[in-house]
Amino acid sequence: MNCIFGIDIGGTEIKIGKFYQEHLVLKTSIKTNVSDGGNHIFSDIFLKIDELTQNDTAEGIGIGVPGPVVNGVVLGAQNLNWKRIEAQRILKERYPNCEIAVLNDANSAALGEMDQGGAKKYQNFVFMTIGTGIGGGIVINGQLVEGATGSSGEIGHIRVAFGNERQCTCGLYDCIEQYASATGIVKTGNQLRQGRDTVLNRIEVTSKNIFDQAKLGDEVCLEVVAQMIEKLATATAAIANIINPEAILIGGGVSKAGGFLLTRLQKRFRELAFYSVRDTEFRLAELGNDAGIYGDGFAVRKKIYGN
Amino acid sequence: MNCIFGIDIGGTEIKIGKFYQEHLVLKTSIKTNVSDGGNHIFSDIFLKIDELTQNDTAEGIGIGVPGPVVNGVVLGAQNLNWKRIEAQRILKERYPNCEIAVLNDANSAALGEMDQGGAKKYQNFVFMTIGTGIGGGIVINGQLVEGATGSSGEIGHIRVAFGNERQCTCGLYDCIEQYASATGIVKTGNQLRQGRDTVLNRIEVTSKNIFDQAKLGDEVCLEVVAQMIEKLATATAAIANIINPEAILIGGGVSKAGGFLLTRLQKRFRELAFYSVRDTEFRLAELGNDAGIYGDGFAVRKKIYGN
Repeated sequence: MNCIFGIDIGGTEIKIGKFYQEHLVLKTSIKTNVSDGGNHIFSDIFLKIDELTQNDTAEGIGIGVPGPVVNGVVLGAQNLNWKRIEAQRILKERYPNCEIAVLNDANSAALGEMDQGGAKKYQNFVFMTIGTGIGGGIVINGQLVEGATGSSGEIGHIRVAFGNERQCTCGLYDCIEQYASATGIVKTGNQLRQGRDTVLNRIEVTSKNIFDQAKLGDEVCLEVVAQMIEKLATATAAIANIINPEAILIGGGVSKAGGFLLTRLQKRFRELAFYSVRDTEFRLAELGNDAGIYGDGFAVRKKIYGN
Repeated sequence: MNCIFGIDIGGTEIKIGKFYQEHLVLKTSIKTNVSDGGNHIFSDIFLKIDELTQNDTAEGIGIGVPGPVVNGVVLGAQNLNWKRIEAQRILKERYPNCEIAVLNDANSAALGEMDQGGAKKYQNFVFMTIGTGIGGGIVINGQLVEGATGSSGEIGHIRVAFGNERQCTCGLYDCIEQYASATGIVKTGNQLRQGRDTVLNRIEVTSKNIFDQAKLGDEVCLEVVAQMIEKLATATAAIANIINPEAILIGGGVSKAGGFLLTRLQKRFRELAFYSVRDTEFRLAELGNDAGIYGDGFAVRKKIYGN
């Protein structure tokens, strides 16, 4: 039987999905070996593909990587110790009979959500993943927006404050990532709990705990959430004013806060967005950590079958 | 001979261009009659088209309007006193043998600049028009991004301050339009000149005068320009982080400040944008007030000839 592989290469593990058409029939993962400049990553993947193919015929391989991609070339991926790598060519040489797709991982997750997750209804949407950092993927008329240098969707680095208050890992100041990611929420929590009567002085200050305690009514936690929402609404309003998507889809670890987060975000967004984009829908992503392999599989399936 | 009309409907005048293929052979304008809910606008245009067609055969009519457009329907245009108008259908009924295109005016200007102006080199760019207000058009892979509700490119309403300092005409606070449009620059000029030794206390405070005097070294004017640049760089960095265009094209009255504006903007942009989009090019628009008719003509030519 013909099969397709969707492979999501992360800094600690490589997730591999095997598909018959759009059906995920097998899911596994291997550790990412980032030694020697990430030179073992492809050979590790080849071994696993060959093992998982069994009696089937691989007709497509889609991979997602944590870095900018233009026309099948990865321009760099810090977490993998990769500099510029011609991923498309490397895969095609090893699997000449396979169709190959190479994507940025956030873009791939956006496609996965469009194919089988929370964005099935949409052809124009922004996928925002909020975890340790904030990333995103943009789909317009059903097509990924790659960007001139493979860097569209770097929405974690929208500036949302003007006091050089918090420096970002990217070197800039006041990127939204510093306020609305899990890391940013913890920073705000640690600031606001000082000298206040809050459960945050008695439990570990994590994004999850802050949301859980906010739901239970802890005032400081509610304040932390409100500050996060203010920044997130500002950035999503900017996104909507610029590209006017049908929907903004929120995924990543922080999205586990669910409706509590989404309702507050949508309310503040409607107050901050230009009137003609105010009805942008907000939705939760549905595929969690599997969005990437679904998107990688979808991208290559589309190349083979054109749908 | 076959001809095409490009028609740019503004709040005070309607510009009309007659084209043989891509060549503008005649340009004229009529006053916009916004009385009776803008009901005379189409009949005035019909008269003029019929007069200008002469012995030629009109094969296409493209119109640009100051409001959101989805699939040929204008959702509203305040400056024309228009509510929802099925512009495409109205034009097609009167000119059944013509191909029709209906566009938002900023989108149309973007297309015009791509066809025959400052964006000829690009397939992925953002056109930003800075005049009394700030508007924009977005082109990705050579295609206009219309947006879910015809409102992509509302970049004048990106929030660039957090103190509810200046209320915008749209009702929101701290839209970039309030800081970086001609109107915004005058506001800043009037704030900063108080109690200071500046030529602004002896001449009319206009955007043009402020730029002219900044070029001559007036310190307060230089400060006004710096504040404008700070906001503009923040917004363009957000735009670049989101869609990673090849270039940002600056047009509109304020762009007459030329290289003086562009150099400062690009410098500050490079300091504020995410590293992988830092090389976004900045260019000046070239077609001035004619960009719209060129874009309207281009859009309909593309419908007829597919290029």
